Amino acid sequence: VYREPAEATAEMIGTMRSSVNDVTAWIERHVRRLDSERVPLADVAGRIAAAPIVAVVRVPSADRAAVDGVALRADETIGASGYNPLELRLVRHGAPPTRRSAVIIAAGETLPAGTDAVAALDQVQIGFDGRCEIAEPVGAGNLVERAGTHVEAGASLVGSGQRLDAYAIGALAASGVDVLRVIRRPRVGLVLTGRSLAERGQTPAPGSVYDADGALLEALIARDGGQADPPRRTAGDRAALAAALVDDGADIVLVVGGTGPGADDASAATLASVGELAIHGVAVRQCETAGVGIVPPATPVFLLPGAPAACLWAYELFAGAAVRRAGGSPIELPFRTRRMALDRKLASAIGMVDICPVVCRAEGRIEPIAPFAEAGLAAALHADGIVIVPEGSEGYARDSEVLVYLLKG
Amino acid sequence: VYREPAEATAEMIGTMRSSVNDVTAWIERHVRRLDSERVPLADVAGRIAAAPIVAVVRVPSADRAAVDGVALRADETIGASGYNPLELRLVRHGAPPTRRSAVIIAAGETLPAGTDAVAALDQVQIGFDGRCEIAEPVGAGNLVERAGTHVEAGASLVGSGQRLDAYAIGALAASGVDVLRVIRRPRVGLVLTGRSLAERGQTPAPGSVYDADGALLEALIARDGGQADPPRRTAGDRAALAAALVDDGADIVLVVGGTGPGADDASAATLASVGELAIHGVAVRQCETAGVGIVPPATPVFLLPGAPAACLWAYELFAGAAVRRAGGSPIELPFRTRRMALDRKLASAIGMVDICPVVCRAEGRIEPIAPFAEAGLAAALHADGIVIVPEGSEGYARDSEVLVYLLKG
Repeated sequence: VYREPAEATAEMIGTMRSSVNDVTAWIERHVRRLDSERVPLADVAGRIAAAPIVAVVRVPSADRAAVDGVALRADETIGASGYNPLELRLVRHGAPPTRRSAVIIAAGETLPAGTDAVAALDQVQIGFDGRCEIAEPVGAGNLVERAGTHVEAGASLVGSGQRLDAYAIGALAASGVDVLRVIRRPRVGLVLTGRSLAERGQTPAPGSVYDADGALLEALIARDGGQADPPRRTAGDRAALAAALVDDGADIVLVVGGTGPGADDASAATLASVGELAIHGVAVRQCETAGVGIVPPATPVFLLPGAPAACLWAYELFAGAAVRRAGGSPIELPFRTRRMALDRKLASAIGMVDICPVVCRAEGRIEPIAPFAEAGLAAALHADGIVIVPEGSEGYARDSEVLVYLLKG
Repeated sequence: VYREPAEATAEMIGTMRSSVNDVTAWIERHVRRLDSERVPLADVAGRIAAAPIVAVVRVPSADRAAVDGVALRADETIGASGYNPLELRLVRHGAPPTRRSAVIIAAGETLPAGTDAVAALDQVQIGFDGRCEIAEPVGAGNLVERAGTHVEAGASLVGSGQRLDAYAIGALAASGVDVLRVIRRPRVGLVLTGRSLAERGQTPAPGSVYDADGALLEALIARDGGQADPPRRTAGDRAALAAALVDDGADIVLVVGGTGPGADDASAATLASVGELAIHGVAVRQCETAGVGIVPPATPVFLLPGAPAACLWAYELFAGAAVRRAGGSPIELPFRTRRMALDRKLASAIGMVDICPVVCRAEGRIEPIAPFAEAGLAAALHADGIVIVPEGSEGYARDSEVLVYLLKG
C-alpha cells in the first residue's frame, strides 16, 4: 500500500518529541504503587513488603548457647591456663547448680540455671570420666545468645518496600511470622499488533520475522516483579486494536508495534480515540516512536515499537519503570552502575538520548560495540553494559569516565 | 537426660575438623552437574543452558530499516545541506526504483529494491505534497539492519552454562528458538530433626523456638536454582532419621539439626550407619558441627546444624555449593565481591574460619557489626556484607582492605 504520510503523526513525531524526564514525570503522576495482599511466608521470595514488619516476640526467648559446647560459670575460669587447667564436673542439664560443674549443651539450648557462659568445643577437653578441662578463662556471656539479642520485641524486621530475600524470610520465620502483606504483582496486558510473523521452526520469508517481543517482554515483566497476561495478537487496524484496549482488569497495558508514522500504524491514533494519548514520540534514538496514554477507567498504556531492540528500550525506560513502580520497586533501571573509562571514543549524534552497548575490557575500562541500530537485540546479548548519552551530548572522548549500567550479574 | 559425651563424636569433632577446602574438594568429587531437560522458551528464565545454542537462521533475513524513516539512495544525498536541501519524491514500497525518490519505511521493514540507506525521521522534513526534504548527506547503509547483522547463521547465541535472562530469551526468540535444553533443577530433600518447635502465632516457651530453618533453606535453595521438596520433620532419633534417609529420588539431601556432640545428636551416626559419613566437623566457627556424606545409591547428604545462623552458613558454604554445582551454576558464594577498607578493627580468634557481618559506611568503607554468634540470623538481615577471615588469621587492623561479599542487591 502507498503510505500517505499521516499529517498529525508526522507533526507530532517530527517536532514534539518528549524527553525521558517528561515521560518519567508522567509515569510518576499516573502510576501508583498497587494495593497489598496477604501471602504465606513460603511464597514471598522476591516480593516487596507492603508495610514495616515489627517483631512481636523476642528471639531468643531466653538466654541460650550460641554453639555446641559446655555451659559454665565464667568467674570460676579466672586463672585457667595451659599450665593450670580448670577441671569441671559434667552434670546434667537441669541439675541444681553446684561449684565447679559444667553442662554439655547444644547450640540453641537454653542456658542452665547458674551458668553464664559457654566454652566452645575447641576451648575444652572433654574427658571420658564425666569431667572436662578448660585451659583459658571464659568471659561472662561468652557464646551466649541473650534473650532478645537476635531480635527484641518491637524491633523492625523488614521495612516497607523492602524486597524479601532468603535472609529476610529466615529472620521472619525465626520471629514466628507466617503470613505477611506484600505489594500485589502488577498484572500487565500484552497486545502484539501487526507485522507478519514467521512460524517458529521455519525459515522466515524476507520481510517477516520471528516474534521476539512477546517472549522478551514476558521475561522482562517477570524480572521487574510483574505478571504478564498471555500475549494477545491482534491485527494492527484500529478496530482490532480498540477492541483489545477495552478494560480487562490489567494494571498496565503494553501495545507493541504500529507506533510509527505509516498509514497502517494505528496504535497512537487508536489510543487517542478510545482513551487519551498523552505522549507520542520520545527523544531516545532507540525507541523514538514510543508513547504513553490512558484507557478507561485509568489504566496506563504504553506504546512500544515493534522492532525488538526498540521494544526493549521502550520497555526498560518507560513501561518497565511503570511496572517497577506499580510493584513497589524503585522506578530506576534495575541494573547496578559503575563509573568506568572508555577505551575508545564513544560517538553519538546530538539531539536524542542514545543508548550505547559496551563490553568490559581490562579492569574498569569499557569499549563500545556495534550499536542497537546495527546489531539489534544481539547487542543486548553481547553487551556487558550500556552507556546512556544525553540528548545534548555528542558522546565522549577516549579515557572519559562514564556511568555504565551493568547488564550482567 | 544426662548427656554422656559420645566417645567417637567427641574425638571426631574435637580433633579432626576439616577445612573449607577439604569440603569443597569433596563436593567437587561427589556432586556432578545434573543431566538436562527440554523446556519451552517461555519457561527458561533463570535456568542454565545445558549446551551452546547456535543460530540456524540469520537475523534479519534481509536488509531492513533499523528505525522509522525514509529509505533512499545514499549517493543521491551527497552535497545536501541546510542551504541546499535535497528534495525527494515519496513513492510506495515496491514501486520500481527511480531517481530522486524515497520510501517511507517503518522500523523492521525490508529495504525497498534500489535503496541502500535510511534517513531517520529527525533527519528529514516530510511535506504534505508527496515529497520530503533532506538537509544532510546520508551514508550508504545508514540505519540499515543488514541481513545477518544481528545474528549470522551459525553464530553462538548462548554458551553452555549461561544463565538465561530476559535479554537472552529475547535474542533466542528472535532466532526462532522455541524449546531448549537446560540443566535440570536439583531436587533437594529437606529433613528437619529434633528440637522442640513453637507453634507459629504463639509465644514460644523458653527453650523452644520457631522453626526458621525450613523457610530459610527453601528460599536459599530456590535462589540457587534448586527445588526444595516439602520439608519432612522427623524425631531426631536414629530410627526415624534412618527412615528419612532412604532414597526417595532427591538429588541432594539436607539433614538439619542433631549434628552436635550430644547423646541425642544422631545425624552423623545415622548417616554413618545407613551410608557413608565422609566429614563431620569443619573449621568454621559459625557451623563447626556441619558434615557431609553419601547415602545409597550415591546421593550427597549434608548435615547442617539446627541453630538458624549455623544452618545458614553450613548451607552457604557447603550444601549451597552442591546445589549450585548440580544445577550448573558456579560453586562459589552467589554474591558479588568488592575490596573495601575497615572503619574499625575486625578481631577474630585464630584456628577457625570466621564469617563476620559488616555494614557499609562511607563510600568504600565497612564496619563490623555484632557477629552471628551473638546476633544470629538477625546479623544476616542487618548486614550489607560479610568478611570471611581465614583460619590462620586473628583478623584485620583498622583501615585494612578486605574482600567483602555483598549480600544485598
